[in-house]
Amino acid sequence: MNDPHSYHMTPDEFRRHGHEMVDWIANYYEQIESYPVLSQVTPGELRSRLPQHPPTQGEPFTAMMSDIDELILPGITHWQSPNFFAFFPTGASFPSILGDMLSSGLGIQGMLWATSPACTELETHVMDWLVGMLGLPERFLSSRAGGGVIQDSASSASLTALLAARERATNYASNRAGLETRLVAYASSQAHSSIEKAMMIAGMGRENLRLVAVDENYAMQPDDLARQIERDRAAGLTPAFVCASIGTTSSNAIDPVAEIGRICQSQNVWLHVDAAMSGTAALCPEFRWTHEGVELADSYCFNPHKWMFTNFDCDCFWVADRAALINTLSVLPEYLKNQATQSGAVLDYRDWQVSLGRRFRALKLWFVIRHYGIEGLQFHVRRHVALAQEFAGWVAADDRFELMAPAPLNLVCFRHRAGDAFNQALMDELNRSGELYLTHTRLNDRFVLRMSIGQMYTEARHVASAWRKIQDTATRLDR
Amino acid sequence: MNDPHSYHMTPDEFRRHGHEMVDWIANYYEQIESYPVLSQVTPGELRSRLPQHPPTQGEPFTAMMSDIDELILPGITHWQSPNFFAFFPTGASFPSILGDMLSSGLGIQGMLWATSPACTELETHVMDWLVGMLGLPERFLSSRAGGGVIQDSASSASLTALLAARERATNYASNRAGLETRLVAYASSQAHSSIEKAMMIAGMGRENLRLVAVDENYAMQPDDLARQIERDRAAGLTPAFVCASIGTTSSNAIDPVAEIGRICQSQNVWLHVDAAMSGTAALCPEFRWTHEGVELADSYCFNPHKWMFTNFDCDCFWVADRAALINTLSVLPEYLKNQATQSGAVLDYRDWQVSLGRRFRALKLWFVIRHYGIEGLQFHVRRHVALAQEFAGWVAADDRFELMAPAPLNLVCFRHRAGDAFNQALMDELNRSGELYLTHTRLNDRFVLRMSIGQMYTEARHVASAWRKIQDTATRLDR
Repeated sequence: MNDPHSYHMTPDEFRRHGHEMVDWIANYYEQIESYPVLSQVTPGELRSRLPQHPPTQGEPFTAMMSDIDELILPGITHWQSPNFFAFFPTGASFPSILGDMLSSGLGIQGMLWATSPACTELETHVMDWLVGMLGLPERFLSSRAGGGVIQDSASSASLTALLAARERATNYASNRAGLETRLVAYASSQAHSSIEKAMMIAGMGRENLRLVAVDENYAMQPDDLARQIERDRAAGLTPAFVCASIGTTSSNAIDPVAEIGRICQSQNVWLHVDAAMSGTAALCPEFRWTHEGVELADSYCFNPHKWMFTNFDCDCFWVADRAALINTLSVLPEYLKNQATQSGAVLDYRDWQVSLGRRFRALKLWFVIRHYGIEGLQFHVRRHVALAQEFAGWVAADDRFELMAPAPLNLVCFRHRAGDAFNQALMDELNRSGELYLTHTRLNDRFVLRMSIGQMYTEARHVASAWRKIQDTATRLDR
Repeated sequence: MNDPHSYHMTPDEFRRHGHEMVDWIANYYEQIESYPVLSQVTPGELRSRLPQHPPTQGEPFTAMMSDIDELILPGITHWQSPNFFAFFPTGASFPSILGDMLSSGLGIQGMLWATSPACTELETHVMDWLVGMLGLPERFLSSRAGGGVIQDSASSASLTALLAARERATNYASNRAGLETRLVAYASSQAHSSIEKAMMIAGMGRENLRLVAVDENYAMQPDDLARQIERDRAAGLTPAFVCASIGTTSSNAIDPVAEIGRICQSQNVWLHVDAAMSGTAALCPEFRWTHEGVELADSYCFNPHKWMFTNFDCDCFWVADRAALINTLSVLPEYLKNQATQSGAVLDYRDWQVSLGRRFRALKLWFVIRHYGIEGLQFHVRRHVALAQEFAGWVAADDRFELMAPAPLNLVCFRHRAGDAFNQALMDELNRSGELYLTHTRLNDRFVLRMSIGQMYTEARHVASAWRKIQDTATRLDR
């Protein structure tokens, strides 16, 4: 028992179980359509089947493998099913899984350049690649004053942007002394809930987030933004931050970033652009119109873990002025000092995020870009948009249903004309069937169904059969 | 080209490349001692070898695999080497890698109970298990008013605790209206830098963090804490938050949590306990004295991704009153509403953290606990502590060196008597050799070497050879 290897899994055992796990994952994707998309378990069902106490002695790996099938799988909502049309997709292509495996296997922690130079440099490099791939402004490049960093989610990216805006607006004083000035932030009434949450976290208060009016397409009205900024300034407040959305979560509305950007510039207000889902569309020249005006942004983020086939978590976040970010978040205790940091020749990404520690997340993004190539990524983005447009056409052609918002890309908002209760019942019935999973939103105070098409393996047949199921279920409920 | 499967890696290709990747990882661990522990590359070296532009067309997976060996590996600092004695360890046992593979493969997103009930329930269950395993107070159990959640890091856990404390101290008003009261937080001068960073992020200001004096063992002096709280109250400020450390990053000092807790209780101040590295020691009854007083804490965290063989990221965070956390962080937009949430019968972990999205991280923790069993985990904790104690004995026996702080567990702080410049040169020379990697801190304004023993595969022979190398290098430099 004094053998230091006791209890460890040996490399050979890992080879065996690792192959089993890889095969399990491959089989899972081959069988995924046989599972109900939305998990059908009831609250507490899994917990009641788990042992109350942890094991004193180790268990064989086969016990874990069989529990995955019997206990875990029934409690999974299958985000990777081609019949998953809920929320926004979260990609998990095989190349990204392989990149993530390597990251787990290497087990490094990239808080400083020195703690694994490859982790920092590959990340900077891939983020610079993406600037070109998405046609983002060159000032986001690390060779200029800007730079990109991988965050866990758009929530964290927006929070980070808000913090830098808060500090810029107070001459980097609120980090030191606390928040004394009353700062105001702006986002459309359709912006993601993470902006409100970021205001709460940053100590700025949710009441200091102004909701800007939207037009009939649910896009921000720049006139109203300008008016509200003026009113706040007149009242002695300090406008500090605007979040524009390229593709809102509710309906994929695209805010007029160029007009918003001009207002922000003239008012010296930080402009953050949240393109969490729809940023990926900019891979295709024909969808790049959605990004018009991004050259005026102080920061921008999109999530490869949504529509760019990279498994969660992977949000790409850029700033035009990395010094603003570093001044906001840098704390350098003695135990992290090292020659590379002190030389000034390297980036230390710990200063670009909330946490100190960080995974080697660039690997999966690098694998995805190299496996698919720009061409392959464009192919699937175009395919998804075409499928969504076809679906929108079917909705428009069935006079029991109506489209509820423009569908510029891959999200279709629609509803049955029979009212909120009917649509809620329709959605619940569809999701209970297990054949597809879709979610809802509320637009103009009406309950609206969202058909979000972006799961990697979704084909025309899945969309067609979802539509048939929607029609049939509506017919049945309408009786 | 209209085949929807175009460009995707097929399940069969994934089987093949997945097996290759598993084998690569197993080989990596078998060869890890042949690499220099600290990467020897210079800034920009990797980037200069990467293509300037991303590929238009996809590349074969073999290209990625050969680049891992040729480009990535030289830029890796090998945290999983048994000769890694820097910072704190970050575990990555094979069972945890397998659990993480499964998480990547399932590709689910656990923001709500409904979006994969197994993700939420397994997490709650394992967190409840750990309460018993570490002897934590029962009020942290989900069956009581508390509960646990997995965060990415102790930085995030501390931030989350600080936010809940901020809200409790202002009757949940600062989330709404912004921070109007001047709140004060306290931590010892040896607390982790993430506390200062959290103060900055939360808009509370780093100047409102009071550094409490430490005793000769670098542990917080409760008298000084009480004095400072009193002084702040007399000045009209509101004491809101105390962070006590069980095992500081600098020297593994253990704050007297029981005394601190009594002060917090009488003053109605939130007590957060940061046991990021040393929490794992509480698995062993004989080390549980380090946790005395934790029953008085409002929140507590430790990192299985440090010393409990679970790969990054995995921080376990508990609160005694989950309502305080949920009231602080909950925002519920229409598009996230669902029956399970509205029934009140489930936990939605998005309300327990900064981000909305979340990985299925409980899997790796579940695998680790089940593979090792409590017994196996205890075995390695005891082994590491014994190795560190032996090392401390060698240092004490060599009169050229001195111990610089108590070594209650697995971190030994020491230095050569020849002064700061000599110790810096000694460390740099050791790290440049590639044979081991260790880092430093500053205690009583003196440069101190840290020997941190907790890498899973570190054996007596690695510690012995590190000590020989330290002695020999000192002899050579001393000439």
